[in-house]
Amino acid sequence: MTYFRVWAPDAESVEVETGGRRVPLSAQAQGWWGVDVPEAQHGTDYAYVVDGGDPTPDPRTRWQPEGVHAASRVYEDRFEWTDAAWTGRQLAGSVVYELHIGTFTSEGTFDAAIGRLDALVELGVDLVEVMPVAAFPGTHGWGYDGVHLYAVHEPYGGPDGLKRFVDACHARGLGVVLDVVYNHLGPSGNYLGRFGPYFTDLHSTPWGQAVNLDDTGSDEVRRWVIDNATQWLGEFHIDGLRLDAVHALVDERATHLLAELAAEVDRLSTAMRRPLSLIAESDRNDASFVRPREAGGYGLTAQWDDDVHHALHALVTGEGQGYYSDFAEDPYLALTRAMTGAFFHAGTWSSFRGRHHGAPVDRELTPAYRFVAYTQTHDQVGNRATGDRLAATLSDGRLKVAAALVLASPFTPMLFMGEEYAAATPWQYFTDHQEPELAEAIRQGRRKEFAGHGWDAEDVPDPQDPATRDRSVLDWDERARDERGLLAWYRSLIALRRTRPELTDPRLSEVTLSVEGSVVVLGRGVVQMVANLGTEQAQHAVTGEVLLASEDGVRLSGSALTLPADSVAVVELDA
Amino acid sequence: MTYFRVWAPDAESVEVETGGRRVPLSAQAQGWWGVDVPEAQHGTDYAYVVDGGDPTPDPRTRWQPEGVHAASRVYEDRFEWTDAAWTGRQLAGSVVYELHIGTFTSEGTFDAAIGRLDALVELGVDLVEVMPVAAFPGTHGWGYDGVHLYAVHEPYGGPDGLKRFVDACHARGLGVVLDVVYNHLGPSGNYLGRFGPYFTDLHSTPWGQAVNLDDTGSDEVRRWVIDNATQWLGEFHIDGLRLDAVHALVDERATHLLAELAAEVDRLSTAMRRPLSLIAESDRNDASFVRPREAGGYGLTAQWDDDVHHALHALVTGEGQGYYSDFAEDPYLALTRAMTGAFFHAGTWSSFRGRHHGAPVDRELTPAYRFVAYTQTHDQVGNRATGDRLAATLSDGRLKVAAALVLASPFTPMLFMGEEYAAATPWQYFTDHQEPELAEAIRQGRRKEFAGHGWDAEDVPDPQDPATRDRSVLDWDERARDERGLLAWYRSLIALRRTRPELTDPRLSEVTLSVEGSVVVLGRGVVQMVANLGTEQAQHAVTGEVLLASEDGVRLSGSALTLPADSVAVVELDA
Repeated sequence: MTYFRVWAPDAESVEVETGGRRVPLSAQAQGWWGVDVPEAQHGTDYAYVVDGGDPTPDPRTRWQPEGVHAASRVYEDRFEWTDAAWTGRQLAGSVVYELHIGTFTSEGTFDAAIGRLDALVELGVDLVEVMPVAAFPGTHGWGYDGVHLYAVHEPYGGPDGLKRFVDACHARGLGVVLDVVYNHLGPSGNYLGRFGPYFTDLHSTPWGQAVNLDDTGSDEVRRWVIDNATQWLGEFHIDGLRLDAVHALVDERATHLLAELAAEVDRLSTAMRRPLSLIAESDRNDASFVRPREAGGYGLTAQWDDDVHHALHALVTGEGQGYYSDFAEDPYLALTRAMTGAFFHAGTWSSFRGRHHGAPVDRELTPAYRFVAYTQTHDQVGNRATGDRLAATLSDGRLKVAAALVLASPFTPMLFMGEEYAAATPWQYFTDHQEPELAEAIRQGRRKEFAGHGWDAEDVPDPQDPATRDRSVLDWDERARDERGLLAWYRSLIALRRTRPELTDPRLSEVTLSVEGSVVVLGRGVVQMVANLGTEQAQHAVTGEVLLASEDGVRLSGSALTLPADSVAVVELDA
Repeated sequence: MTYFRVWAPDAESVEVETGGRRVPLSAQAQGWWGVDVPEAQHGTDYAYVVDGGDPTPDPRTRWQPEGVHAASRVYEDRFEWTDAAWTGRQLAGSVVYELHIGTFTSEGTFDAAIGRLDALVELGVDLVEVMPVAAFPGTHGWGYDGVHLYAVHEPYGGPDGLKRFVDACHARGLGVVLDVVYNHLGPSGNYLGRFGPYFTDLHSTPWGQAVNLDDTGSDEVRRWVIDNATQWLGEFHIDGLRLDAVHALVDERATHLLAELAAEVDRLSTAMRRPLSLIAESDRNDASFVRPREAGGYGLTAQWDDDVHHALHALVTGEGQGYYSDFAEDPYLALTRAMTGAFFHAGTWSSFRGRHHGAPVDRELTPAYRFVAYTQTHDQVGNRATGDRLAATLSDGRLKVAAALVLASPFTPMLFMGEEYAAATPWQYFTDHQEPELAEAIRQGRRKEFAGHGWDAEDVPDPQDPATRDRSVLDWDERARDERGLLAWYRSLIALRRTRPELTDPRLSEVTLSVEGSVVVLGRGVVQMVANLGTEQAQHAVTGEVLLASEDGVRLSGSALTLPADSVAVVELDA
């Protein structure tokens, strides 16, 4: 037996179409409708009919085996977990690894990904961050155009596939963070408007209609968001959520959705007796997202820190286009501000935005692990015209410097899959829209976007071409060869971070960054990361012991540390 | 080779006596002295000689195999841990079990305790809280008169014994909290004064000289305290510390020792990538101990909540002596205030103290798990004249009511060993002082204390009599029989707490407590605990389902819940 239940506050009638018949639902309180269907069970297909319209997937469908437009299927949780001994993995001190199920392996499934988890354990990471898995149109895609938030993308393996993946991670001591998108829905397969006021015109987002968090009817829409979050953390045993673009969650109610979510997740964490993390992607440079609720903040665990990325990127690549321009003006200054204060734009002028931006972080009280730092992410790679990684243009030595800057930083380090071995494969923008018009619009939109930056149309990969996805798949043979030596370097850096508490010390106020010519010195107590970003060999005066060196040419003789161009050493200073 | 190092800021000379000779130490910065002794190694005995005085144990001795007055022994960490997969156990949502190694088993050792851990797993607790294990005089004792804070009491099994115990706990999914005493030292074996200004007369404590946290020389004394805390959490893999009587840690410096400690433990937690808890025993009724540092508090994880105990105790026993008097005046009111606001004395008159006491807790923002609740502790039992447990005077039914009130409360529940099966054995005050004068003073002091409450001297157990300790040992055969049915009841309550998130909901503002005649109703969302504390059967109107009942006589018929005297039901309300 299945109890069908749906929210449709303005409907005159709601029916469920299942087993070849339509069963009317009864109106209940607060705009909900419900009915018991005795013969429906796990595996039974169904769709809702609102006011006699077309059969439509459930707004809370758990299973869409035939795609986002087709019938929903009843899904009952029958998974046999083996992670009873799992007591959680806290974010503080952890190293995060972002991966995309569809391109992590050529198969593009959870089960294939399980087969590669041991490589991540060897690498030394603690948390795997999985890009969105909510059902989205087509087979392949980044996942940010998901439309069925409660269903797991079937080509990846569906709901049971995700559970197998999480269970396998826990068996290996890896926690799992899931990327979730609550600020908009994709352009195809979104039928929510048939059911209720899920969207509002009060606010707008760059990606479509804003989700209704504060307009009429928003109580139930907020519930739909929060219940989704707790579905992943509860039933799916996920250890944390990465909240996509929280600056686009416009909410003018007294209690912001994120504060409400954080409070609810705190309750769930207490009930489950293990840490649950909420990690915001925020473009606001506002630490109140991660300030405890007792101190007037929203109480999220952490947020992505694009300023650290931009400073690092501008420094190691020399690029200065678009949002890099302010950083490129004096990349050493930008890096100093970001490394010692989390934000470069901290109430300062942003020429990209044409306004002042951000607010300073309290360096005495805000733990640095509340900021996630990286040299690459799916966005920072994939949103480039050809999805080229840093490895495509930088020397091995320079890649090692970039890695050391992140892994010796006080922040929560995050790697993007493939980064750890300087993957030669790009990570490009790909979609699989089935509607010809939408497919063409995406194709042209992409071309147009980069035409504005001087790219010829034929040089911008076609997102709809299956070859674009295929090019983006990791090459595990390449990884095994580690020809550029990066994999060994990342392993050493992560191992060092585990053994030297100076490197995880979350006190921003204790971080120093100084620059002498081309030499950057990141000070973490008695541990220093000394890098030469110049094209000539450089010397740096230091007395101590070299803990790690990026190449043989690095030498410490007496108090003179010799650094070839694009090299780096981690040094323990003499007491 | 061993490097001997000691702080003796006012000494003219320091020597280490080892291997039959005395080796002088060299003066170093900040009052420290040090020397390498090539032949000293793990297992070598040594003592320090300050200014030519008597050989004295090391203030940071790791090993005192021959007792607190004898030589120290070099201890090197060679333990082979098997808990690599352990990712910690957070306090929020956990159930704590307080035990005393010396009486948990008749052997009184860590190794014997390991043999009983499976019983705690079956019971369902998450964290084992171990009473102090720092080396104290004699063989048996409560441990609050420890004098070598860095050494583990040898009769329990010494440092390696504690490591085996922690490792065995982790293997079973149990975290370990260790009770540590930083507010005073015991009266025998305390030689710290020979080395430096460890104590101050600026403040006083009920138990002897105050530890110098804010007077001249206090920098190094604070370091001695904080390094001790991190020794347990780091090298010994302990998951949390219970800080004895923090209200006696008088510290007038700008940053309180506890805030400094909390910040340091946060760093360690980050380095170890697992939650570390600090739990204060506080008599101040001041939630700023557990407020995050970002919100101006000290940032401890939790504190013991004696007000909840006193309210419960006054209610179930009818006692009203001493500090129970304010609670006994209207025990239902006291329980209501404590259950819904954490503190009964929240800026209100305390007749026991002759002054107003406490400050209110912010019920919207302070998570209830920051308060530890219990009906019994080592203190609340052992500080009674004869160490009688509640089980000695209360009916089985009344014990079940008390247990339900704690395990259905929003706080972090804690049991005291033996409570779970209504142990018939008492838990008495026992000591093992070797100096006849001190032994006699302890004996007479105990008699005198209770003579003031009308006890005859011969009825107060002699703390120095070995039989007093022996009487206090748990009887595991009695536990196995569970004649009073309490063990099954505790297991059911803990299991229910794990499956019903309402019971761990940390929102104080959502807790309700109402009283109708002798019936107390503790409301936790749709889950209610309904108890009859009267001597007659009572009825309570409720529609729902009984999840747990303390006896067969509890019946729900229609909307009438029938409760015999001293019975309790946990009910799920109909939606």
